[in-house]
Amino acid sequence: MTATVHSLDLTRPDGRQLTLYSRRALSGDFDSPAAFTEPLQGSPHLRWNPLRAEWVTYAAYRQDRTFLPPPEYNPLAPTTNAAHPTELPPGDWEVAAFENRFPSLSLRASEAPELIVPTAPAKGKCEVIVFTQDPNSSLGALPLAHIELLIAVWADRTTRLSKAGGIEYVLPFENRGKEVGVTLHHPHGQIYAYPFVPPVPARMQQAALDYHASRHSGVLQDLIRRELSEDRRMLYKGPHAVAFVPVCARYPYEVWVAPIEPVATFAALGEEQRADLARALKTTLLKYDGLWNRPLPYLMAWYQAPLDGKPHPESHLHAEFYPPYRTRDRLKYLAGTEIAAGLFAMDALPEDKARELQAVEVSLE
Amino acid sequence: MTATVHSLDLTRPDGRQLTLYSRRALSGDFDSPAAFTEPLQGSPHLRWNPLRAEWVTYAAYRQDRTFLPPPEYNPLAPTTNAAHPTELPPGDWEVAAFENRFPSLSLRASEAPELIVPTAPAKGKCEVIVFTQDPNSSLGALPLAHIELLIAVWADRTTRLSKAGGIEYVLPFENRGKEVGVTLHHPHGQIYAYPFVPPVPARMQQAALDYHASRHSGVLQDLIRRELSEDRRMLYKGPHAVAFVPVCARYPYEVWVAPIEPVATFAALGEEQRADLARALKTTLLKYDGLWNRPLPYLMAWYQAPLDGKPHPESHLHAEFYPPYRTRDRLKYLAGTEIAAGLFAMDALPEDKARELQAVEVSLE
Repeated sequence: MTATVHSLDLTRPDGRQLTLYSRRALSGDFDSPAAFTEPLQGSPHLRWNPLRAEWVTYAAYRQDRTFLPPPEYNPLAPTTNAAHPTELPPGDWEVAAFENRFPSLSLRASEAPELIVPTAPAKGKCEVIVFTQDPNSSLGALPLAHIELLIAVWADRTTRLSKAGGIEYVLPFENRGKEVGVTLHHPHGQIYAYPFVPPVPARMQQAALDYHASRHSGVLQDLIRRELSEDRRMLYKGPHAVAFVPVCARYPYEVWVAPIEPVATFAALGEEQRADLARALKTTLLKYDGLWNRPLPYLMAWYQAPLDGKPHPESHLHAEFYPPYRTRDRLKYLAGTEIAAGLFAMDALPEDKARELQAVEVSLE
Repeated sequence: MTATVHSLDLTRPDGRQLTLYSRRALSGDFDSPAAFTEPLQGSPHLRWNPLRAEWVTYAAYRQDRTFLPPPEYNPLAPTTNAAHPTELPPGDWEVAAFENRFPSLSLRASEAPELIVPTAPAKGKCEVIVFTQDPNSSLGALPLAHIELLIAVWADRTTRLSKAGGIEYVLPFENRGKEVGVTLHHPHGQIYAYPFVPPVPARMQQAALDYHASRHSGVLQDLIRRELSEDRRMLYKGPHAVAFVPVCARYPYEVWVAPIEPVATFAALGEEQRADLARALKTTLLKYDGLWNRPLPYLMAWYQAPLDGKPHPESHLHAEFYPPYRTRDRLKYLAGTEIAAGLFAMDALPEDKARELQAVEVSLE
């Protein structure tokens, strides 16, 4: 954490933790609102899928979770009427992090049913990261300094989760738009903290290790060098960070955002890297929303190194964006070959999609 | 192929092959319709995604493919007016297989651009399998003997593709319903024939090999034995085949259909196994459509052994069904944890969903 990030920890009546973040000192009394007062119930559990050799997590109580409430019931807005508390207090905080009331993974998980496949309590943590107090804003619309703060918050959450015990991987992500199933429109993301390195990051980690062992350099580092040198698919070229449509995109408008030099985790980012990463991120998001002059839905996922305490010179922090549209009015569905076989079939060339995004002019100021 | 399956091969004006199948001898003259007369153009190519260590296939010309045409222009119905030919001739065929006009993989592929990642021509084959002449029917509504014929067609296609040269994996699948992106509603599936074992079957194959090496039995064989013995999630229990909601389902209404004894490929199915597999398949589909008295959308994928000419005692032919709904009116979206991490989060227990499907009464006659 840099000196410019202030945080305040609160515990809710139901036992969940809440952290408020700001670039300014957080002054005054903060009450943790009491939208829920009953202690958390339910213990998510894992079941082993032996055909895929991977875990699946089950949390039946999630069926009752909040679903697109009307604006007057926005649980992610600051509380304005004490009689109707939301998840968050009023005050001068800018970003907030709290435990999901309906988690798929929980450090409190203690039980698992006995079944015909291996099972285990679904240890881990699911956090909600509220990007701003303004329900009508968006990640890309936030000032650069606010986005830098958010990157610092992702770093702080990763560091805290690495100390929580039993967490091996931390994935910050944002699902944006009803097309990807978002149930609350207030600008927010999530963090899943896993008790093991989950399948996709595990494969990426193995690929990065194999590449590093044979080439003595980073796989993403080398790719960024080649993307910069070819310069056909770049969306942002800063002194420390880049955004580009990767030559091997699996989604038509897929974009990767990364520091140029490999950095294993958010916590290892220097201040200048973080500032430039914020510019690369904001550029991408403004281009997305400028493409068709409407908010573009997407999944944004931030990959970093496993939290095993070892050095990871092969790891390279970066975000991958997967928007679900293939044209202005057609969704790209994941179907037979993508879901069942894992071979993505693209009917658009990354070079063409990059040109479309390059043509969208944005101003970072 | 059993003696009761008749087939007839035709070649279209544009060079694509068409095979008609029937339980009865195919008599009379068949003209291959000429909806398209220009030779196939375009050469799909593969690009290597070095971060995931997997291929992605690109076929830009697929953007022009047919999209939900009006009923009078159904390319999968038999031609009734020679002035407006469809993809298929009239006549007494029951099932048809032909090359996709807009393939993501093609044995004709011969070019790949030089790029900053490895590339290759996207060799392979994409076939359309028309299940019936009736545009208003569905796979589950077909008579058992017709479904048996279809299973025999999948076997015949697999055998033919294994001899085409360079094909290592054959995946028959069906995307059904606009919720999973279907562009033509006529009952049909697809077959993708890959020049390598794609990522998901490769992982399943490795898991099956590991299991078989340590237990000396099949991973799905053992799971079916336990599912039958526990008998909580079974939908169909026949002498040779089963259908059940697996204990480790990743989708709320996920169902697996399989022969009880391991069979490596469609071609290795005996006649009694095929007949019972048809009953298990039809039972599943009728339960799906009876659940909410409307056609349930789904992805159906059939996994079989790689086509490397070696014996595969660890492999066990089976279908996995992934319907996209989690309740009658809510879709299950694949979002952050599923897509980005590969850990599926379920808010429903397989036992509860199995009970819902068990309660749907179906008649196979």
